[in-house]
Amino acid sequence: MAIDIGGTKIAGALVQPDGTMTATTRRPTPRGVDAEGVMAAVAEVVADLSGSPLWSSAVRCGIGSAGPVDTSRGTVSPVNIGAWRDFPVQERIAAELAARGAELPTVLAGDGVAMTAAEHWLGAARGYANALCMVVSTGVGGGLILNNQLHPGPTGNAGHIGHISVAFDGEPCVCGGRGCVESIASGTAIARWAREQGWTPSAGSGPGGSGGPDGADGPGTARDATAAGVAAAAAQGDPIALAAFDRAGRALAAAIAASATLVETDIAVLGGGVAAAGDTLFGPIRTHLAQYATLSFVQELQVVPATLGTHAGLIGAAAAATMLLPPSASSEPSSAPAPTA
Amino acid sequence: MAIDIGGTKIAGALVQPDGTMTATTRRPTPRGVDAEGVMAAVAEVVADLSGSPLWSSAVRCGIGSAGPVDTSRGTVSPVNIGAWRDFPVQERIAAELAARGAELPTVLAGDGVAMTAAEHWLGAARGYANALCMVVSTGVGGGLILNNQLHPGPTGNAGHIGHISVAFDGEPCVCGGRGCVESIASGTAIARWAREQGWTPSAGSGPGGSGGPDGADGPGTARDATAAGVAAAAAQGDPIALAAFDRAGRALAAAIAASATLVETDIAVLGGGVAAAGDTLFGPIRTHLAQYATLSFVQELQVVPATLGTHAGLIGAAAAATMLLPPSASSEPSSAPAPTA
Repeated sequence: MAIDIGGTKIAGALVQPDGTMTATTRRPTPRGVDAEGVMAAVAEVVADLSGSPLWSSAVRCGIGSAGPVDTSRGTVSPVNIGAWRDFPVQERIAAELAARGAELPTVLAGDGVAMTAAEHWLGAARGYANALCMVVSTGVGGGLILNNQLHPGPTGNAGHIGHISVAFDGEPCVCGGRGCVESIASGTAIARWAREQGWTPSAGSGPGGSGGPDGADGPGTARDATAAGVAAAAAQGDPIALAAFDRAGRALAAAIAASATLVETDIAVLGGGVAAAGDTLFGPIRTHLAQYATLSFVQELQVVPATLGTHAGLIGAAAAATMLLPPSASSEPSSAPAPTA
Repeated sequence: MAIDIGGTKIAGALVQPDGTMTATTRRPTPRGVDAEGVMAAVAEVVADLSGSPLWSSAVRCGIGSAGPVDTSRGTVSPVNIGAWRDFPVQERIAAELAARGAELPTVLAGDGVAMTAAEHWLGAARGYANALCMVVSTGVGGGLILNNQLHPGPTGNAGHIGHISVAFDGEPCVCGGRGCVESIASGTAIARWAREQGWTPSAGSGPGGSGGPDGADGPGTARDATAAGVAAAAAQGDPIALAAFDRAGRALAAAIAASATLVETDIAVLGGGVAAAGDTLFGPIRTHLAQYATLSFVQELQVVPATLGTHAGLIGAAAAATMLLPPSASSEPSSAPAPTA
C-alpha cells in the first residue's frame, strides 16, 4: 500500500511486487482547513483503497510526504501544508488502516527519499549500488542509495541536496542559508535570475509553439515567465536564457560532484519540471561536471534523467516500505495471491 | 596488526582489542627510490612486528595509506609517494605476512577513513551513529560513519571533503576543480591567503612565545609564514590573521553543513595541524555553522576536536580492519591470549 502526500494532492494505490499500481485514487490537498481537515482527505484515500479486492493482501504500507519529515517520530511539517506542523501522520494512518482491518507495518519517507527508492527499484538508478536521485522543480530535493540500500538518515531527510551551499559567500536562501543549490538551480531561481538579467517572456511565440518542457511549471513556451519559459527561450537560442541554464547547470554539477566525492555515488538521476527541459539542463550539467568531479574515483560519474515521472511518488512510497522494513516471510506467501505493498 | 603508510613515515603496531598498541615501529618513507625501494621499508616494518611474542595471535591486518587509494583493487597512488602509482600494496603486504607465517585477512583504507574509524572507536566520535571526521592540515581529508558503520565507499575514498566545492565560481584548486574546501581552508591556503592580504610573519615575537599550535605545520609562532604562524598572530589579535581563519572557518562550516544535510551526520570531528589552532579555528566554524546548517534536522550538529592525534593512523588501520572484515569467531578466542588486530 502506498500513500503519497503532497502540497497539491494526496494519492494512494496498491502496488504489486512488479510495480504495477491498482486501486489508484487521489484527493486534492485541502486548503484553508485545520490539521484534521487535511487528515480527513487522507482517510478518504484509505477508505477508497479498502474497497479494493486486494486490500486484504497488502503486507506493508509506505507513506511518502512532502518535507520536512521526522521519521524518528513519524511526524511531518510540509512546507506547502501549513495546517500540519509535527503532525503524527504515521500513527494516524496506521490507525486508519487498523480500523479497516489492516494492521500493517508502516514506513514514513520524505518525498525525495521516496522518489529515490522508486528510481532505484524501477527507474534510471536500477542496478546502481550508489546513487543520488534529485527532483529539480520549484524546489530542489533528493535522496541517496548507498551500498544498494536506501539511506534516509535518522530523521528521513538525507539527500536534501537543495540546501547544501555551493557558494559560501553567496546570496541568502529562503532556508536561512547562503548559496544553497536551490537558490540557484530551482525553477523559481532560474526564472528570477533570467528576469534580473533582462530576459522577458517573448510575445512573439505562439502557445505551444516552442516545444518547451512540461512538468511542475506547466507547459513551457517562450511566453511564460517561468523556468519552462526560460527553457523554451534557451531552446530558441536566447543568450540570457542559455546563461540562466548554464549557471543552474554549474551549481547542480558542483552539488552532484560534492555528493559523489563525499559518499561515492556513481550516478545522479534528475527528475522534476526543470529536468524536463532535457538537454537544455543536462548539457550544461555534463559540461561543467568535469570541472568539479575531478578526483579519480568520481570521474566516471553519470548524470541521467529520471524515468518514472509523476508515478515516482506512489511507487517510491511502496519501494521505501519494501527497502526499509525487514522482510516478513510469514505474511508474504510466494504463491498466489501475490503480496501487495 | 596495523600498518600506516604516509608521505613521511611508515609505521606498524600490534593493536589490542582495547586499543593498546604494542611492538610499535616505524621507518622514514624512502625518497628517491623506486616502488620496490618503498616496499622494502614496509617489509622491514612487518619484520619488526613479526619479532613480537604477540605476532602469532594477530587475527587481521589493517593497512591505512595516504591517498588516493583504490580499495576495490588493493592499490594506492599516494600524492606524496611518487614512486607508487597503482601500487598493489594490499597484495604485497599479505604476501609479506604469509611469508612470516601470518596468513591474515587484510583491509586497505585511505588515511581519512582510517582516522574516522579511530575517532569512532576510541575518540571524539565514539557513540555517534553518524559522524564526519576530518583532518585539516596541509591538505583536507576525511571519512564518514553512517548507521554506526564505516562508509569507505566502493573505492575507499568516501568522505573526501577537501575536494567538494563550496564556491562553484571560485578559484581553481590543484585537483583541477574550483572552489574546493582544501583550496580555502587547508593550512597552505590559510597562509597563502593571509600573505596575499598583506600579513607578514612578525619579527618581534620570540620563538615559542606566542603559544601557537603545533602539528603538521610545526610549532607555531607569529614568526612562521605558515598556518601555525597565522594562528599565533590571530591569537594575538592580528586582524588579517583573524580574517584568514574566519574565511577558512566559513568554508569548513559550509562543507560540514553540506555533509550533514546530505547524509545526516550528527557530529564533525576535526583533527590535524590546523585544527590544533583550537578556538582560533573552531570559533569561526561554530559561529558560521548557523548560516549553513539551517534545516531542522541539522541544527543540533556539533563540531569538536579530534582526540587521538598522531596515534589515529595506526589505531584507525586496526579499527578499519575490525569494522570492515566480518567477525571470525573461530580465530578469535574469547579467552587468553587476547586477539590482536
